[in-house]
Amino acid sequence: MRTTSDAFHLAVPTHDLDAAQDFYVTRLGCKLARRYPDRITLDFFGDQVVCHLSDEVAEAPVPYPRHFGLTFADGGDFDRMVSTIHSHGLAVLSDVSVRFDGTPARHRTIFLADPSNNVIEFKHYDDPRQQY
Amino acid sequence: MRTTSDAFHLAVPTHDLDAAQDFYVTRLGCKLARRYPDRITLDFFGDQVVCHLSDEVAEAPVPYPRHFGLTFADGGDFDRMVSTIHSHGLAVLSDVSVRFDGTPARHRTIFLADPSNNVIEFKHYDDPRQQY
Amino acid sequence: MRTTSDAFHLAVPTHDLDAAQDFYVTRLGCKLARRYPDRITLDFFGDQVVCHLSDEVAEAPVPYPRHFGLTFADGGDFDRMVSTIHSHGLAVLSDVSVRFDGTPARHRTIFLADPSNNVIEFKHYDDPRQQY
Amino acid sequence: MRTTSDAFHLAVPTHDLDAAQDFYVTRLGCKLARRYPDRITLDFFGDQVVCHLSDEVAEAPVPYPRHFGLTFADGGDFDRMVSTIHSHGLAVLSDVSVRFDGTPARHRTIFLADPSNNVIEFKHYDDPRQQY
Amino acid sequence: MRTTSDAFHLAVPTHDLDAAQDFYVTRLGCKLARRYPDRITLDFFGDQVVCHLSDEVAEAPVPYPRHFGLTFADGGDFDRMVSTIHSHGLAVLSDVSVRFDGTPARHRTIFLADPSNNVIEFKHYDDPRQQY
Amino acid sequence: MRTTSDAFHLAVPTHDLDAAQDFYVTRLGCKLARRYPDRITLDFFGDQVVCHLSDEVAEAPVPYPRHFGLTFADGGDFDRMVSTIHSHGLAVLSDVSVRFDGTPARHRTIFLADPSNNVIEFKHYDDPRQQY
Amino acid sequence: MRTTSDAFHLAVPTHDLDAAQDFYVTRLGCKLARRYPDRITLDFFGDQVVCHLSDEVAEAPVPYPRHFGLTFADGGDFDRMVSTIHSHGLAVLSDVSVRFDGTPARHRTIFLADPSNNVIEFKHYDDPRQQY
Amino acid sequence: MRTTSDAFHLAVPTHDLDAAQDFYVTRLGCKLARRYPDRITLDFFGDQVVCHLSDEVAEAPVPYPRHFGLTFADGGDFDRMVSTIHSHGLAVLSDVSVRFDGTPARHRTIFLADPSNNVIEFKHYDDPRQQY
Repeated sequence: MRTTSDAFHLAVPTHDLDAAQDFYVTRLGCKLARRYPDRITLDFFGDQVVCHLSDEVAEAPVPYPRHFGLTFADGGDFDRMVSTIHSHGLAVLSDVSVRFDGTPARHRTIFLADPSNNVIEFKHYDDPRQQY
Repeated sequence: MRTTSDAFHLAVPTHDLDAAQDFYVTRLGCKLARRYPDRITLDFFGDQVVCHLSDEVAEAPVPYPRHFGLTFADGGDFDRMVSTIHSHGLAVLSDVSVRFDGTPARHRTIFLADPSNNVIEFKHYDDPRQQY
Repeated sequence: MRTTSDAFHLAVPTHDLDAAQDFYVTRLGCKLARRYPDRITLDFFGDQVVCHLSDEVAEAPVPYPRHFGLTFADGGDFDRMVSTIHSHGLAVLSDVSVRFDGTPARHRTIFLADPSNNVIEFKHYDDPRQQY
Repeated sequence: MRTTSDAFHLAVPTHDLDAAQDFYVTRLGCKLARRYPDRITLDFFGDQVVCHLSDEVAEAPVPYPRHFGLTFADGGDFDRMVSTIHSHGLAVLSDVSVRFDGTPARHRTIFLADPSNNVIEFKHYDDPRQQY
Repeated sequence: MRTTSDAFHLAVPTHDLDAAQDFYVTRLGCKLARRYPDRITLDFFGDQVVCHLSDEVAEAPVPYPRHFGLTFADGGDFDRMVSTIHSHGLAVLSDVSVRFDGTPARHRTIFLADPSNNVIEFKHYDDPRQQY
Repeated sequence: MRTTSDAFHLAVPTHDLDAAQDFYVTRLGCKLARRYPDRITLDFFGDQVVCHLSDEVAEAPVPYPRHFGLTFADGGDFDRMVSTIHSHGLAVLSDVSVRFDGTPARHRTIFLADPSNNVIEFKHYDDPRQQY
Repeated sequence: MRTTSDAFHLAVPTHDLDAAQDFYVTRLGCKLARRYPDRITLDFFGDQVVCHLSDEVAEAPVPYPRHFGLTFADGGDFDRMVSTIHSHGLAVLSDVSVRFDGTPARHRTIFLADPSNNVIEFKHYDDPRQQY
Repeated sequence: MRTTSDAFHLAVPTHDLDAAQDFYVTRLGCKLARRYPDRITLDFFGDQVVCHLSDEVAEAPVPYPRHFGLTFADGGDFDRMVSTIHSHGLAVLSDVSVRFDGTPARHRTIFLADPSNNVIEFKHYDDPRQQY
């Protein structure tokens, strides 16, 4: 377990702050920490994601090499996130699939994209020691 | 304090796995979790950063809108990270400065770049409630 | 998980300190921290509730917009609280019901009132990320 | 220390959701969890406060018997909250004062009001055992 | 640090439940968990002490071999407890003294008695590894 | 959960240090912290119990009003302790029984005695909120 | 539960740093903290193991009296470690067996050896109180 | 911080169980968990060290490549351990010295030996991130 008060910090571009807030707060279930004219800051399930107003958004959501997300320690938390994604009709790039089946690194994964084509991945490993 | 076993997950491009490992593990002080032919996975101070071998590295380190890093809860941890950066001669984009002085959001920040021009920021807020 | 030594603090009116202590300590299972001539202070399942002797009690228990209570992270804790309420014959305003069924915000809830018509709600969300 | 995933839950009336969000999120530093047409839900420093749109707001802020807030375990956290309140020009009902001086229950306290006349108190006890 | 939900349990005799409650709750700062006709149960700083109505109280407070209390990990907590004892005029059997000075087991200790002659000791070791 | 470095401290008489060490360490599963000519100090499942060499041992084990022990938060821990007691042939005063059946305070309990007639109780409540 | 920032420290000999890194990091799932010309330092599931380049490696893996490893609190973690060992084809000295069956100290254990004949044991006790 | 119930496990040889118990429990401050005819098991500051009766003890204490010990997160804990070592007259192989001065890996270290020539090291790093 991580017992730390430190927060991971990620900044990504957005072309539209309202769309970003709708996606991350109203649909995905993050919390809005602060809203400025040029950015919103989010409590992304315990870490910080900042969406900066910018022209440099990707033209399409490309999963590799740039994406971010969360690796759940508990499979039920992963299930509930998948359910939230489906229930709120979020655009899924690649629905739940299993990777590295039959090996210690076996995990389930789902990819989606935010309104500015930033790619998000949620994962769950059978063996929590494979989380890193 | 975050007491969770979940790990933030970030994937970034690298043009050279050896250079990435040297930068993150030998110099910055992250731990190497796994090394594959096409990527390394890092325990980045409690979260996971993956460096994928890729051609899509930036031509130069541009801090906005894309960067990532850590917000330390403890000022001493920030100081020791700055000291590690200077002592290992890592390339600093913008040395320690103070932002939002005189306001509740006052914080210190330092920017650096990894060998593939991914931009990293370390921060410390006077008031830990501003961390998000 | 909240790992903090901070305590939420709520002050509510009561027309009768003995009745308040009987309700909160003997029946509901809170702990009495201190008793003064004009108030009692309670350890309300980890937070602090103070009952001040006052004429300004409501004439009847009205759930909205003012009420307070606890959102349990664990469904079993919610079940045991409901069982305690029933077993001690506490006056229930609205027995266990399900709200927002079929959505990520699905939760069970029960409303009761203390002897001075302060309304109390206990809840449990299927998805703990909806707790806020 | 409270290590629990349970959240205290408080519902209060507001006459204006925008004003409530501005007060609690932009100025006081809470996080916005969800916004509905008739209410906002807040992560109030680890607990949940819900502001329901309602006509039943008080005509003036009256501290007793109804108010709520937070008792900080750490004096520095109290100081930083006072500094945030002053720096954002929030309306203070009663500035920092000391109560029960010379006794084990000695504590500092500050009272303010939200835009709908809900009264908020922040406190810090010299002896954390007096927190309840 | 002990991170456990288990509670130490101690039962002691009392000749008078009101006197016991006054001593432990009103003066010493414990919390009253439950009161029955023949006993009170206390949250004694995280553990459970039960005072049973009984004729078998000691005629005078004799410190050895039977006594109970708390070893504080933090010296400030010990200081504040001593201050509470003095400020509430509790009967001290033996005021703060130092034992095993000049050795790794050096600690400060204070002895008092409850109204039924049960002897209580509070301690603080310079080296927390000596706490057992 | 109790997250504290403080340790409950209990001193009891023993007529024989070897017999006490055999009972508490070899059979019951406590840890020996220190042994002096006139006492042994034990890590009693996270708290401290000291056995002082003394003539004042009870002539027979009498459960009320003086006894001590542990209330397990987890029923499996209680089961395993009962199994340890039976497997090591420890003298049981009163084997596992249920008290307050059909009420929120329902719990299982077992009483035993150490070689100097100090009475020990282990308990488990269905509802952990009843632990105090 | 151990909530400490202290780390157990163990230094063992290795005849080949690459082989050691391959065994501990790539196969067993430890993290590489630092690599020097004469040693590697590992985050061995929360503690530190250092492999020093040395001629003094054992000629064959001899389990007693010198070996090291981890006692898992959770049986599932033990199972997953066994599965990782089998799946990566690590040389097992003695596959999973049960010791002290029918007693409170019953536990499962597996022995393996690293490439320099250091012997490693993983264990799981039915009763976590037997872990020491 | 490591919040885990897992315990590191180390087995070392001893030529004399009484001498081992005297050294580790009476002098160094470990706790004796169990004593068998052929070994003692110790709670070594949160991890497990087992001393097996064996002929294979080293003829002299040789620090490299085999030794074990603890890296303290807190400098005061290191100081108090050094003080315990000196105060109990334990044989020091190499008294407190500073290694890697002027680098991020700067730490203080002390080496001693147990009665069977097993070498023990206690350390403290200025920067806790260097602990691995």
